[in-house]
Amino acid sequence: MSLYFDHMANTPVDSRVVEAMLPHLRETFGNPLNLHDFGAKTAAAIEEARQKVGDLIGAKAPEIIFTSCGTESNNFAIKGIAKANEKKGKHIISSSIEHFSVLYSLKELEKEGYKVTYLPVDKFGVVSPESVAAALTPETTLVTLTHASNEIGTIEPVREIAEKVKGKAVFHVDAVQTAGTIPVNVAELGVDALTLSANLFYGPTGVAALYLKKGTRILPFLLGGTQEEGKRAGTHNITGIVGMGKAAELAKLEMEANAKKMIPLRDKLLKSIPEMINDYFVTGHPTQRLPGHASGYVKYIEGESMSMFLNMEGIAISTGSACVSKALKASHVVVAIGVSPEDVHGSVVLSLGKDNAMADIDLFLEKFPPIVERLRQMSPLHK
Amino acid sequence: MSLYFDHMANTPVDSRVVEAMLPHLRETFGNPLNLHDFGAKTAAAIEEARQKVGDLIGAKAPEIIFTSCGTESNNFAIKGIAKANEKKGKHIISSSIEHFSVLYSLKELEKEGYKVTYLPVDKFGVVSPESVAAALTPETTLVTLTHASNEIGTIEPVREIAEKVKGKAVFHVDAVQTAGTIPVNVAELGVDALTLSANLFYGPTGVAALYLKKGTRILPFLLGGTQEEGKRAGTHNITGIVGMGKAAELAKLEMEANAKKMIPLRDKLLKSIPEMINDYFVTGHPTQRLPGHASGYVKYIEGESMSMFLNMEGIAISTGSACVSKALKASHVVVAIGVSPEDVHGSVVLSLGKDNAMADIDLFLEKFPPIVERLRQMSPLHK
Repeated sequence: MSLYFDHMANTPVDSRVVEAMLPHLRETFGNPLNLHDFGAKTAAAIEEARQKVGDLIGAKAPEIIFTSCGTESNNFAIKGIAKANEKKGKHIISSSIEHFSVLYSLKELEKEGYKVTYLPVDKFGVVSPESVAAALTPETTLVTLTHASNEIGTIEPVREIAEKVKGKAVFHVDAVQTAGTIPVNVAELGVDALTLSANLFYGPTGVAALYLKKGTRILPFLLGGTQEEGKRAGTHNITGIVGMGKAAELAKLEMEANAKKMIPLRDKLLKSIPEMINDYFVTGHPTQRLPGHASGYVKYIEGESMSMFLNMEGIAISTGSACVSKALKASHVVVAIGVSPEDVHGSVVLSLGKDNAMADIDLFLEKFPPIVERLRQMSPLHK
Repeated sequence: MSLYFDHMANTPVDSRVVEAMLPHLRETFGNPLNLHDFGAKTAAAIEEARQKVGDLIGAKAPEIIFTSCGTESNNFAIKGIAKANEKKGKHIISSSIEHFSVLYSLKELEKEGYKVTYLPVDKFGVVSPESVAAALTPETTLVTLTHASNEIGTIEPVREIAEKVKGKAVFHVDAVQTAGTIPVNVAELGVDALTLSANLFYGPTGVAALYLKKGTRILPFLLGGTQEEGKRAGTHNITGIVGMGKAAELAKLEMEANAKKMIPLRDKLLKSIPEMINDYFVTGHPTQRLPGHASGYVKYIEGESMSMFLNMEGIAISTGSACVSKALKASHVVVAIGVSPEDVHGSVVLSLGKDNAMADIDLFLEKFPPIVERLRQMSPLHK
């Protein structure tokens, strides 16, 4: 028996995605830049996938650039857009709850002389559109914000922010946690660039994309051949791209039903855990949150220990950003919503997937409170 | 009936590699940074692959950093090593026959104030070790050279060059065309950093590696999470990495037998084509060349046309670097060995794989001369 509640870190690959990838893994290998049928077959497979990924987010196929991961898309978007617009200015607006791939890209630009405004968030993790408007200067070239943080699950008011940014800077959104999970339409949201990753919507790891609105200037990040219209060099991840296309197609069809199924499970976790465990506090927004996302923190004990004890019961959860849990640092995202650094160490992220059921929630609620109780008895911090 | 002579652009995935990948594609999805069994399973699969890739080139597993493609490894190595050693100096040595992923990375560094010496090659495409020694200055921090160009197939005297570079600069070698095809042992060669890519030795596309000798300083290229010991952020391409590991294991066992099989086929092409076609000239080295590599140029006609006519007969070849053939530019590599820019347009690269047989060569030799003849009759350049 095992329960996987770590879908914000990585989703399993849907079996229909595996089936779509298999024939290409075996037989599609021609280089699409070369003038022969083997290459043409690869090019056709890639372009079909590009169309499907575009369809998922309301973009045109040529606006989709395939990359190797969300981290690459974020690095590429931030550095590429900032540098392509350097003549206008060197000011960027972001927030205090961004993923490390955004944060460290910005830190590097700061070393090169860029100024970055990191907007605060409210206690639910919301970036206010007014704060974005107030931070814009004539030197601002880029606004880069998450659509929803993997750590707290709050869905940001991207459309309202886009209205403030429009015509003043390029607006890039890290939609790794939202694209394929909730409706994301680039035209309706009004964004110029958007990061999405297959491994968050039941596609394979190793493939992601950057949506770039037609006419948006960017410098390439990976330099070399003429792939992706010269915007991203490097041999294509053929099978991965096919898998991302199929996963996008399925997500478009099924995300609404998946969300409908997950929301009651999530809400039961959000409601029941604080009822069952003293000094447990939910993090993130009460309503504007990802359908499968239930995060919080337990006072007096370490997330790492909870994670390991739960693992012994066959239950997989995360204790913050999957990308930093080995760093053992207090999550800057949870700190940003006002949780004290001590309490941040007790943060937990339960992220559900389309295959979880109410029985999983019941089992979790049976196993979790005794673990917390036991750890608290061992904890010197617990009164 | 179809013949694939474009293995320098991409190899098909070996069926045993596909089989090794499949269970992981279906079932290995935990984030290896997270503290649960799903993540541990992924970590174990990645570390097993890392060991196998290390074994292929005589490296220790922790010296292998997984990336998404050879282009990324080259961009990462060049920028990362140059910038990590910037305090020592800003001079880099390279050659006139490098892949575009090397060339354009260097061009970008030149814009930032670096000086790059592009060493010439002789008529066979060989970089002389003495020229490297002569170019080294106290400000030189990096020497970056190809082990064998995909366009001319000449195997460079890397060990002799390493002896000149040792103790004076970091030596990076682009071994995309050699690792897994001919013996590559980093200790014997004496290199500090080396790029290799799974898709050139019957592994999948979308995964490659950078070997970095223990103690060699580098700045990360992809910034974000703590993956790959902080050297390469981004969610791992789990299935791709497993496939690269399996492909490396098979290459180590079978490359010698594969080469033995390919060399006579290659030599028949190198010998017969000039006998059958007037004004056809072999490019690259007569003996120091990749086992499956037969390149040359046909005067008075375009490689593009030959490629397309051959494709109509079911034969796939390349007309230069696969990464640039859509650019329709004269190959800088073939120009570097002294071929005139007009003649470069007639260049062809025939690259064989382990599954080609002598019957394929015979068929090619039957089909190719009449195509050249026909195109020459159509060509205004032909006397």
